[in-house]
Amino acid sequence: MGEQVSYNTSEAIETSTTGIQLYYFEKEVFDLIQQSSMPDRDRTKLFAQLARFNVLYMVASAGSGHLGSSFSSLDIVSWLYLNVLKSEDRYFSSKGHDSPGLYAIQTALGIIPFEKIHAFRKIGGLPGHPDVSTPGAHTNTGSLGMGVSKAKGFLIADDLYGNKSKGRIFVLTGDGELQEGQFWESLVTASRRRDGRLTIIVDHNKVQSDTYVSAVSDLGDLEAKFLAFGWDTVRCDGHDYLALEQLLISQAPDGRPRVIIADTIKGNGVSFMEHTSMGDEQEYYSYHSGAPSLEDYQNACEELLRDIKNRCSDNDIKLPKPNVLSIELGKASENSERMIPAYSEAILMEARRDSKIVALDADLVLDTGLIPFKEEFPERYIECGIAEQDMVSQAGTIALNGLIPVVHSFSCFLTSRASEQIYNNCTEKTKIIYVGSLAGLLPSGPGHSHQSLRDITAMSAMPGITIIEPANARQVKSALQWAVSSNSGSTYLRLTSIPYESFDSNVLGEDMVEGRGEVIFGDSNEIIIVAVGPIMTNIAISIAKKMSSQGYLIQVICTTWLNRIDIDWYKQILEGTKVIMTLENHYMERGFGSWFIGELSVANIESACRSQAIGIDSIPACGAADEVLEHHGMDDESLVERLTILCDKFSVSVKEP
Amino acid sequence: MGEQVSYNTSEAIETSTTGIQLYYFEKEVFDLIQQSSMPDRDRTKLFAQLARFNVLYMVASAGSGHLGSSFSSLDIVSWLYLNVLKSEDRYFSSKGHDSPGLYAIQTALGIIPFEKIHAFRKIGGLPGHPDVSTPGAHTNTGSLGMGVSKAKGFLIADDLYGNKSKGRIFVLTGDGELQEGQFWESLVTASRRRDGRLTIIVDHNKVQSDTYVSAVSDLGDLEAKFLAFGWDTVRCDGHDYLALEQLLISQAPDGRPRVIIADTIKGNGVSFMEHTSMGDEQEYYSYHSGAPSLEDYQNACEELLRDIKNRCSDNDIKLPKPNVLSIELGKASENSERMIPAYSEAILMEARRDSKIVALDADLVLDTGLIPFKEEFPERYIECGIAEQDMVSQAGTIALNGLIPVVHSFSCFLTSRASEQIYNNCTEKTKIIYVGSLAGLLPSGPGHSHQSLRDITAMSAMPGITIIEPANARQVKSALQWAVSSNSGSTYLRLTSIPYESFDSNVLGEDMVEGRGEVIFGDSNEIIIVAVGPIMTNIAISIAKKMSSQGYLIQVICTTWLNRIDIDWYKQILEGTKVIMTLENHYMERGFGSWFIGELSVANIESACRSQAIGIDSIPACGAADEVLEHHGMDDESLVERLTILCDKFSVSVKEP
Repeated sequence: MGEQVSYNTSEAIETSTTGIQLYYFEKEVFDLIQQSSMPDRDRTKLFAQLARFNVLYMVASAGSGHLGSSFSSLDIVSWLYLNVLKSEDRYFSSKGHDSPGLYAIQTALGIIPFEKIHAFRKIGGLPGHPDVSTPGAHTNTGSLGMGVSKAKGFLIADDLYGNKSKGRIFVLTGDGELQEGQFWESLVTASRRRDGRLTIIVDHNKVQSDTYVSAVSDLGDLEAKFLAFGWDTVRCDGHDYLALEQLLISQAPDGRPRVIIADTIKGNGVSFMEHTSMGDEQEYYSYHSGAPSLEDYQNACEELLRDIKNRCSDNDIKLPKPNVLSIELGKASENSERMIPAYSEAILMEARRDSKIVALDADLVLDTGLIPFKEEFPERYIECGIAEQDMVSQAGTIALNGLIPVVHSFSCFLTSRASEQIYNNCTEKTKIIYVGSLAGLLPSGPGHSHQSLRDITAMSAMPGITIIEPANARQVKSALQWAVSSNSGSTYLRLTSIPYESFDSNVLGEDMVEGRGEVIFGDSNEIIIVAVGPIMTNIAISIAKKMSSQGYLIQVICTTWLNRIDIDWYKQILEGTKVIMTLENHYMERGFGSWFIGELSVANIESACRSQAIGIDSIPACGAADEVLEHHGMDDESLVERLTILCDKFSVSVKEP
Repeated sequence: MGEQVSYNTSEAIETSTTGIQLYYFEKEVFDLIQQSSMPDRDRTKLFAQLARFNVLYMVASAGSGHLGSSFSSLDIVSWLYLNVLKSEDRYFSSKGHDSPGLYAIQTALGIIPFEKIHAFRKIGGLPGHPDVSTPGAHTNTGSLGMGVSKAKGFLIADDLYGNKSKGRIFVLTGDGELQEGQFWESLVTASRRRDGRLTIIVDHNKVQSDTYVSAVSDLGDLEAKFLAFGWDTVRCDGHDYLALEQLLISQAPDGRPRVIIADTIKGNGVSFMEHTSMGDEQEYYSYHSGAPSLEDYQNACEELLRDIKNRCSDNDIKLPKPNVLSIELGKASENSERMIPAYSEAILMEARRDSKIVALDADLVLDTGLIPFKEEFPERYIECGIAEQDMVSQAGTIALNGLIPVVHSFSCFLTSRASEQIYNNCTEKTKIIYVGSLAGLLPSGPGHSHQSLRDITAMSAMPGITIIEPANARQVKSALQWAVSSNSGSTYLRLTSIPYESFDSNVLGEDMVEGRGEVIFGDSNEIIIVAVGPIMTNIAISIAKKMSSQGYLIQVICTTWLNRIDIDWYKQILEGTKVIMTLENHYMERGFGSWFIGELSVANIESACRSQAIGIDSIPACGAADEVLEHHGMDDESLVERLTILCDKFSVSVKEP
């Protein structure tokens, strides 16, 4: 795939006005390196550099992915795969987001078919976070802190299957990850093992999502902690193969599990991506997640190429040229809008108005839009680290003391990891605002660990919480204002993080009337689509336009209320309606639609019996947005078909002009 | 309240054939002690002994409650309240179940109106676990591990309210509680404080729910752990006031938070209840939770009385007699059945049949019915300690390795604390059986932290999990067998822990046909009640009998399937049905009923539009079973009324004979 081009270091990466060139090394190059007679350390280092080059390729071609952590762990993982792991051993990463690094190694070694390198975060390709459906993946990770628990499960099962081989298990963790409570839960029973089979390596790269671990929540004396928990504890430079070699081969004399604290450099291998290159004034690290800019990509490639070339020539290896792939650059829509910047402004506005507002976050200050808040109100910004349970319980007593805590994380983690803590807060009947971003099927690159499709359900059983999903930037501000000033109880705001087409709302000036929706397309209500959230509302408008032009009498209602309904308003709106379809960016099972239809039923609104709830009905696929929507039957064509079938079923037809 | 009776030590407790006498000391006795000129230590010890006497009273009169932990912590908490706490300070217990001990102290001091002592675990009285609606309760606890997080929230709020007093916060924890991951999450940011305001006291009584902490999941070097986490760490005998006094008054010189590891005796104060009196062969501690036997109550009272009398006479205090309350003993129903023993047998049977079955538990081996399993298959019993997240993730990889893990805890904790871990397992598409006991509104003594009313909702959004709620012992066995042998995917079994009336099921021999129910009462389906679970099914039968005798044509269907529906079967069953009422032991919001009615709607079963889902619609009340059912409108009378109204609404009337 791709074509060979002549190049020299300064002209390595070509560009055009509409596309870019991306480069990768073929498997044969890795084979060549493997077959060489270089000393292990040199070979492994060169292998790792080639892997870094392919990591850049994967992340750039996918448009997303985690560079910093892939690079910081690549030396360790390369050493493991090339020099340590036997066939009966298992390696996996507990943090999961360093998957590009792992894939680069596994494709290079033929554990994964090499061509998959072109399908990172593509449907049917390599998922954003590890999934057992991928060759070489032992378990699913991506939600932090589970690694040692999972290792113990493998060991327990091995013990019970007396005749199985007794391979070793190596688990890589992040360092920010060690803020998660489950990790410390899991160390305890593990510490009693004496079979020498379990080794953790902490990729201690000092930087978590956006900034230094020490700034977010300093890990303190990590060695003392592990020793106190009964683990054999050693430490080394994670880029020093001599040290790593010794510590990975050996075991504690009494066979207790070992933790290797490996001091690494986030972004290691590309000078300007290394966290050690950050200026003293620079607070935020730029290469945790996300594709690099074109300029950064080019510079990174050039730097790696230079180093690779040098190593090859030092070892008399004839390095083939990298292959090239040309890709089109996506064009941003002109009408594109994003919720998180709107939320950033909204919470700042509310905080200026009401000094009781306090914002809590769990290491996602950039993604949750809180940087402006943090900078203006540093004393009211509570950074909790990757510790959602701790964060939510702190919010509980902050609220008991009369302040208004606003709690932030990704929907997938906030409503799931801290479910019990949210419930405990609810039983105190205080007022807390929970804000979950990254909600829904998209972005679909990260994979199911991050695609939040069950948060509506999870929050719906929390007594007293009103669930709101704004569909545009305007509604984000109205919703937050309502939550702060109008709602005496608690609120959960569900926010979409990717860009979407903006649309007009609140034409009638009736924003935030509890339990109502808004008609945003169409005049005749013979067929009604009730949509929630920006992605689905836009899709609803799109299919309504299509079907309208075919002659169907169709209306779109967008509602922001996911567990409140003004039944009288709907009675009136649905008078004469023949069929109803609901559309949500969530699992169908006990999500918005099934609840909504149930509510219409018990209110004796008979069109409920001619309705259908549409949502996601299987574990979400990982891939690019369009292919994932299609995979789940949520693309325009599929939805038009499904709605047409529903209309046919109840004899609702196009109207002659 | 009660009457004074003459007594001597051997005749202190009178009995009759239908009732028992319970004894307590009036507030005036405590006042007398407080006003005496005894040295602080003697006074506090005597106060604590009197409090223990009232703890016994409360637990015996409620029929449930936690003696062991109340007794082990009473000396510490008495000292705090009598000698340390200032008005601006806060004390609360993170474990929460030592509430009787706290109430005994707080009623004695007038913080809580004294008469509430007669209303422990009664509606409107003192809840089984602390709730902020009770005077003197700072926050809700009962679900372990939240205490330090909550303390931090108070401190943060105090900091932001610059003008508030800077009182100290004392948090008591259990020791088994320290197995919970959230606890270790919470220590980290707390360790950076330098205001000397935060003190934890670990009630290190060495025994958790059923047995020794060291057997469940040894805490290892606890001091080293706390020191490694940056806390000022000290240790003392938790019954030695001299030591406690020093450590509670003082602070770490640099103001960092302090943890006092207090070595205590579970059940301290009553010789045979003290864990140190357990024989070497004795594995299980008998006084963690539950009311004492009559004999134990009498002996405990006599022993405490003796000690109290001695202390009084040593200090020239004229001790008044305790007051007496006569209570009737409840009679167990003759037709009474319990699910957990049935489950015990069922899992043993399955395990003998299939060697792949492994049972995991989180310190609830007695309550989950696993003692027989553990004794017969010790190598297949995995005790995880109070660490649900860790347990569930271990189950995940045990399943990946081809075994069949069966995971146990209370529904309230299993589906809530480990929500994210269950989901992660689901994405691996393995087969795991989750078993939640203590499901539903009853028992209602413990309070909302334990009454699980949201587990159906929580599990319904887990892809691939089938949710089953057996309604009798027979169905427990069928359900487990189905989960093990017929279901290729994962299952969640929801079990009731209290006794209920047994009823016949599977008359037609069609047990466990997926998605169907069973008609268990009535012939004519004009009015249909669909009930789930033993409590609600019995209630449904009861109200159906009542309304039937009034002339209504009414049928009861019991279904075990909470998220699977055989719509064709229901179409046939509901043919001619005029109204439907569903009845569940769960929140109404996105529970069974609302889902069920929604499913009927989208299948165009028009009686769905003449239906009502009945469940719990507010935070569950704490109290005795009957009063709590009535409080929630789930008593017979209320339900007959609600169903009658529904019938009237849709013109369904009694039939003339």
